[in-house]
Amino acid sequence: MIIETEKSTVLRMEANHHPAPSWRTWLLGRPLHTADAPHQTVGRAVGLAVFASDALSSTAYATQEILVVLAAVGMLAFHLAIPIAIGIVVLLTLVTISYEQTIHAYPGGGGAYIVARDNLGELPAQTAGAALLTDYILTVAVSISSGVAQITSAVPVLIHWRVEIAVAIVLLVMMINLRGVKESGTTFAIPTYFFLVLMVITVCVGMARYLMGTLGTVSNPPPMLERGHLQALSLFLILHAFANGTTALTGVEAISNGITAFKEPKSRNAGITLIWMSGILGTLFLGITFLTVQIGAVPSELETVISQLTRTAYGGVGLPYLLTMAATTLILMMAANTAFADFPRLSALHAGDGFLPRQLTFKGSRLVYSRGIVALALIACLLIIFFKASVTALIPLYAIGVFLSFSLSQTGMAKRWWKSGHLAPGEELHEPGSTVRYDAKWKMKMVVNGVGAVATFIVMAVFAVTKFREGAWIIILLVPLLVTIFFRIHHHYRDLAHSLSLDDYLPPPRVRGQHVIIPISGVHRGTLAALNYARTLSHDITAVHVSIDAAAAEQLREKWEIWGDGVRLVILDSPYRLLHEPLIQYIDKIDALRQPQDIITVVVPEFIPKSSWHNLLHTQAAFTLRMALRSKPGIVVMNVPYQLAGR
Amino acid sequence: MIIETEKSTVLRMEANHHPAPSWRTWLLGRPLHTADAPHQTVGRAVGLAVFASDALSSTAYATQEILVVLAAVGMLAFHLAIPIAIGIVVLLTLVTISYEQTIHAYPGGGGAYIVARDNLGELPAQTAGAALLTDYILTVAVSISSGVAQITSAVPVLIHWRVEIAVAIVLLVMMINLRGVKESGTTFAIPTYFFLVLMVITVCVGMARYLMGTLGTVSNPPPMLERGHLQALSLFLILHAFANGTTALTGVEAISNGITAFKEPKSRNAGITLIWMSGILGTLFLGITFLTVQIGAVPSELETVISQLTRTAYGGVGLPYLLTMAATTLILMMAANTAFADFPRLSALHAGDGFLPRQLTFKGSRLVYSRGIVALALIACLLIIFFKASVTALIPLYAIGVFLSFSLSQTGMAKRWWKSGHLAPGEELHEPGSTVRYDAKWKMKMVVNGVGAVATFIVMAVFAVTKFREGAWIIILLVPLLVTIFFRIHHHYRDLAHSLSLDDYLPPPRVRGQHVIIPISGVHRGTLAALNYARTLSHDITAVHVSIDAAAAEQLREKWEIWGDGVRLVILDSPYRLLHEPLIQYIDKIDALRQPQDIITVVVPEFIPKSSWHNLLHTQAAFTLRMALRSKPGIVVMNVPYQLAGR
Repeated sequence: MIIETEKSTVLRMEANHHPAPSWRTWLLGRPLHTADAPHQTVGRAVGLAVFASDALSSTAYATQEILVVLAAVGMLAFHLAIPIAIGIVVLLTLVTISYEQTIHAYPGGGGAYIVARDNLGELPAQTAGAALLTDYILTVAVSISSGVAQITSAVPVLIHWRVEIAVAIVLLVMMINLRGVKESGTTFAIPTYFFLVLMVITVCVGMARYLMGTLGTVSNPPPMLERGHLQALSLFLILHAFANGTTALTGVEAISNGITAFKEPKSRNAGITLIWMSGILGTLFLGITFLTVQIGAVPSELETVISQLTRTAYGGVGLPYLLTMAATTLILMMAANTAFADFPRLSALHAGDGFLPRQLTFKGSRLVYSRGIVALALIACLLIIFFKASVTALIPLYAIGVFLSFSLSQTGMAKRWWKSGHLAPGEELHEPGSTVRYDAKWKMKMVVNGVGAVATFIVMAVFAVTKFREGAWIIILLVPLLVTIFFRIHHHYRDLAHSLSLDDYLPPPRVRGQHVIIPISGVHRGTLAALNYARTLSHDITAVHVSIDAAAAEQLREKWEIWGDGVRLVILDSPYRLLHEPLIQYIDKIDALRQPQDIITVVVPEFIPKSSWHNLLHTQAAFTLRMALRSKPGIVVMNVPYQLAGR
Repeated sequence: MIIETEKSTVLRMEANHHPAPSWRTWLLGRPLHTADAPHQTVGRAVGLAVFASDALSSTAYATQEILVVLAAVGMLAFHLAIPIAIGIVVLLTLVTISYEQTIHAYPGGGGAYIVARDNLGELPAQTAGAALLTDYILTVAVSISSGVAQITSAVPVLIHWRVEIAVAIVLLVMMINLRGVKESGTTFAIPTYFFLVLMVITVCVGMARYLMGTLGTVSNPPPMLERGHLQALSLFLILHAFANGTTALTGVEAISNGITAFKEPKSRNAGITLIWMSGILGTLFLGITFLTVQIGAVPSELETVISQLTRTAYGGVGLPYLLTMAATTLILMMAANTAFADFPRLSALHAGDGFLPRQLTFKGSRLVYSRGIVALALIACLLIIFFKASVTALIPLYAIGVFLSFSLSQTGMAKRWWKSGHLAPGEELHEPGSTVRYDAKWKMKMVVNGVGAVATFIVMAVFAVTKFREGAWIIILLVPLLVTIFFRIHHHYRDLAHSLSLDDYLPPPRVRGQHVIIPISGVHRGTLAALNYARTLSHDITAVHVSIDAAAAEQLREKWEIWGDGVRLVILDSPYRLLHEPLIQYIDKIDALRQPQDIITVVVPEFIPKSSWHNLLHTQAAFTLRMALRSKPGIVVMNVPYQLAGR
């Protein structure tokens, strides 16, 4: 379609560029048309499956990580895991109530980033975002490592390859996400409910046998994790164990990000699903912890506590054991998969606001944020390799971010209730993310969110202190560093928009003429092709040769007389054997003399070898010159390629 | 100076670009003028110091590496080291006589590469070169590792940092060589003679005490190296021990490379120095081996045999011990330094013949082949890190290359004598490297070199077989691989010269006109700067926007009507969200329609941020386009930089 307008001709065409099939197509599937983006909503049962995997999967390691800390006192301290677990469930209840309120206030999706941005401002929002992004990476590393630990518990011979297996699984999940996960619900429902059913059965069987007194203890327990010499029981240690256990709460925030995925009434459905999820999570976690203590399971790098519990409950490693372990592994992989959905979406949100490179908002051929997915996978792999796929080694880094974002989100909500309380009934305050309305119960709701904010903040502080030396310091340094980087990126984009803006812009005078400089290292077909091109630009052409060998320069001069077509040749003797510097110095000299309306064009002859590895055999003069001259206005560097025919 | 010639104006000027002082100047010293290249010759005493360090230093580890193999049989087998050492000295004599003949035949320098190239052809020459280059890298790794082993023998606490120390020393030697070693002779004479004197005294003291019967055995010997379970004595084992011991011969070839550095009569002086050197080397090696066996020294990673010998000879770790250890460390560092002179020189020779990237012939600011020096240091460091600075681990890779090049060089010499025998007396055959003259003793000399060739070939084969599994396989794979790469590089340069040659070249018709395409992502100052520039190229200009968002494209169209100055705008809708592919497809379409005398110039607007890290925040469209289009004749991609002012 051609649109003839007053001042210019606009031609509009659809690029029918359906990318050619390649290894990418084979690996990722055919490219998707922008119009193919899915729009689908889910009910509560499927919603639970979609959003609960992250939260539920943490029952696979939370109990074990409590015991890891208590082991420093000795096995007698293991019974303390039960009161600690009860404390964690109380915290869970508090967080759930807080988030339930958020869901109703933000029917459009109330992740910590958005709630903090709308109510607290940019700095808290970026902090919450940085904390969450960090934590999503750890979700992948921890979940996959724990999943591999379940596999190696069932098949001990694989223990030697646990890092390789974990990396392979991360790359597999990455690939699945690059293809684009069809959020059809079933994909999620099957593994989640498979896990749920099996784990409930396992806990019930265990409980029944416990009540009948036939449960017994773990047979052939694995060697307990070494924790150095024994310590005395201390408040610090109990808080440390508590902090490790609160990793059970990671993933609870997932539903608040995904409200729009629910069927109408969205907020109500999402809220009920959240309460279900927390109920199941709390019950399972308590049940697992109780049974773990009864059977005398020990924390070990060789066999997970879940594995010990399951084989004790079923009295052996038969089919029920294997199914339960498979389900646990699967739910942990689903949890990692959740992070693969959340991380790219959140980083695209940051990028859209100009706090991360804009490239992250770009959807790839399969309509997913490919760059964010790849970045997440690579960093998670590095973590897994560095921490040797050990959950216990990774845990000190984990969940600080999530609790920081919990706290910021609840603070934002509390502030929002306070604002709402100062409106007249019926009055509305329109904000970018949601509408603030007067709410009769605003005081009550403010208190709930306020208590949630304080509680999660305290938990985060406990994390930071008790796990500081074991790795939490990394996160404590990283989050402010990330926030700083985010703001620097933001400033750059703001400056850029300002510098490129056409407001108050006076078009510069037309370019009058060009001085063309052709750097030559020899007289050959490539040089002549560049000269031929340069002729179309200007009559003012100078060929420049930097000479480090007088005899070679003389030969070049003679050849130029034959082939140079009368064009001026300047030979720069370079006694210090520098090649680029004398040329740049010469160009600077010409630059100093040029009229403001003139431009200097440096035309670099370049030959294009047949295979790209041949480039290693040539100095990349055009690139060096372009880098050296790019900051100077009025100088343009171009290369005229000469394609080698070969024999 | 301006040279007015018939067809063109040649302007010749000396670039007085004395590079500005920077961290490089501080580290490497001020740049040197090409005219500063040193020309200096040395006498025999200094010549010995300059060229002998590599050969003499191998006495620091050769004996130990014999014992390492014999240890597999048990300490009772250690006395076999003496007959093995005698065998090695016989081989040394043979090699010395062979090389003495080479020196007289090649007064201009007769390294294995040149001798093989002139007499046997390109393939043997490249093989000899590849073998030598590999071996120079190992010389650095082995010598420095052995030097560090001497240090840690004297100061055991440093053992934990031996890799770090070794890497630091390699980098130090690299730095010294990048500054350019003043070949003043004294620099070499002091450490070489320091070592020579102290080692001779140590051996004499040891011998005297042995004869008086007061020598005794090593007190507190270190724990012997573990070699798995005991083996029976076998021919294989003895050959293996012999192969390890022949590392004493590495460096013997050094003088044949450096004949021109001697005072006149060069060949005679070089030959006599070679005989001195071999005499000293053989005597020291025999003496050290004899005493080592007498005192019952054991091979160990914790204390070198030299250290055990020295402290036993002097009856304790007093000043004489410390001085001897210091001298040994120093000579080993000098040996590494020799490789730093030889490796870059040989690779420049290869590069000059077109078998390695030409950049290697380029002398840096301090008149040394900087790139070769850096490459050598980096590869040697990697080896040291990988083999944990263990001489015993590195030895299986060592000396195969040297013996392969010995053998090729001697074969070349034998062929040369054969040619010489077929000349009439007085007749001369001029070859690039030397002149072949009739020699009355040609048969005798051919036999000597022939025997040398066969003997060194057998030794190399023994190496390859006995040390195959321990690491020799790496070299056996690497040398042919390198030779293949060398030839592929050579073919590329030959093809290149052919493709660029102006023989039979018909200048193409003048370029008639240009179609200019400006890809734009938005309408801003950078776009307008590019448009302004494009106006000087042609009147046929098209701005092209690839749209993945219809609303944004519409906005852009409106802005273009105001600022686009009537230039045609094409909007390409990209439903698969690809950015470059539709543009390239469009350019291809235009390309298909263009006249052969026309050219397509793609002018890419580019904004230059203030800090270079900001580049990460922008897609590098010009680079991607240039890479995609560089193989197409008649298309030139340029970027017009727009410098951001910032606030």
